[in-house]
Amino acid sequence: MVHTTHPGNIGAAARAMKNMGLSQLYLVAPKHYPSSEAAFRAASALDVLDGAVVVDTFEEAIAGCALVVGSSARERRIPWPLLDSRRACEQAYQEAKRTHVALVFGREDRGLTNEELQQCQLHVNIPASEEYSSLNVAMAIQVLAYEIRMAHLSSQLPADPMHGWDVPMAPADDLERLFVHMEEALSEMGFLNAAAPKQAMARLRRMFQRTRLDQMEVNILRGMFTIAQQWVRKARAVDDRNT
Amino acid sequence: MVHTTHPGNIGAAARAMKNMGLSQLYLVAPKHYPSSEAAFRAASALDVLDGAVVVDTFEEAIAGCALVVGSSARERRIPWPLLDSRRACEQAYQEAKRTHVALVFGREDRGLTNEELQQCQLHVNIPASEEYSSLNVAMAIQVLAYEIRMAHLSSQLPADPMHGWDVPMAPADDLERLFVHMEEALSEMGFLNAAAPKQAMARLRRMFQRTRLDQMEVNILRGMFTIAQQWVRKARAVDDRNT
Repeated sequence: MVHTTHPGNIGAAARAMKNMGLSQLYLVAPKHYPSSEAAFRAASALDVLDGAVVVDTFEEAIAGCALVVGSSARERRIPWPLLDSRRACEQAYQEAKRTHVALVFGREDRGLTNEELQQCQLHVNIPASEEYSSLNVAMAIQVLAYEIRMAHLSSQLPADPMHGWDVPMAPADDLERLFVHMEEALSEMGFLNAAAPKQAMARLRRMFQRTRLDQMEVNILRGMFTIAQQWVRKARAVDDRNT
Repeated sequence: MVHTTHPGNIGAAARAMKNMGLSQLYLVAPKHYPSSEAAFRAASALDVLDGAVVVDTFEEAIAGCALVVGSSARERRIPWPLLDSRRACEQAYQEAKRTHVALVFGREDRGLTNEELQQCQLHVNIPASEEYSSLNVAMAIQVLAYEIRMAHLSSQLPADPMHGWDVPMAPADDLERLFVHMEEALSEMGFLNAAAPKQAMARLRRMFQRTRLDQMEVNILRGMFTIAQQWVRKARAVDDRNT
């Protein structure tokens, strides 16, 4: 972080980094630091904040880094190799496996200077809304730290929303028995149109098939229909006695 | 945002939303609001902040939304359909084309209650570090708003870091002429090993080919070598006169 004015942003950046599994924070001539506001915003990332290295110049901060990525607004007078936040962080993550990589963030009011940007091999841009494209600096750090982490996790994240479900899914034959039972119970209840019982059943099948029922849910539904059948039979028995 | 304690987080969320092209903010019973701290952190997103709808209950906030996505810590007692931030936002973005979608964020200290989470169709988790997984609520909103925007931009972002370059790239025949000139000039300068001039040239070719030179850069390099040749010839002429 270069020439940061508000210490709260430094603390928030430390927290964002720790949340995303990063820890090496360099501060180039911060205006107010150390600061209680920074510590407050860091919350449980005080270790990252306390470990921050304060240096006087941009050059000291990036010394030893073979890839320096500067955060930049979209348009600069001299175009520079530029990638969006996702692609730049994928590259930075890959290169960080074999060398030191720096992600550089500028001042709250005007970002990095052209001189600083020309010390970078790559510029990165968060493709924000054209209506209001200036992110708070800690927010920008959160976004890039998040992208670094997503590059790290890449294919490990389960694509299936039912991942880690607590009950096994119901197999097809159990589902078929459920639908037979359902149709029987709903017929007894007089719910199905006797002339076209399959119409409502098709809707119910579609609904429950889409849900992807687990075994316990099948049992719950079977139990519901069994109870309903018992009440119908009881009521019919009373009717029979009264007639 | 449900029962937000710190107004600064509301302002920061409004800014994050506007930065990412979003605008519809609902506040369920915020503790301190309106607030100057919220306005300060909103910066140029005062329109989003001023447009925020304050309601008393969670149910009022999500009324009319056919997809309600609740932000959640990874582990809950009862598993619920759950996706990571990238996949959940892709789904939310797609569904938002045909219906109203709510992304719901809980209290700073303990998130959404189980009762609130059970009013959601889908839960979303930001795959943070296990060492410190609790993001500041405005940061979480920044990450999800960013993912919504990335889903929106998806394939529009240029994958080529040289996109929008100000000068056309140099064609192969110009490059070949440059290398011929370079070898000639470096030979005249006595830089190349006369016994094996191709060794250094192979390194120089690899370096400049990797750079992907543009036409102006080729001209700059040709100019450099031309000047160097002139100095060599001038010096040789002086030498010749003196001998």
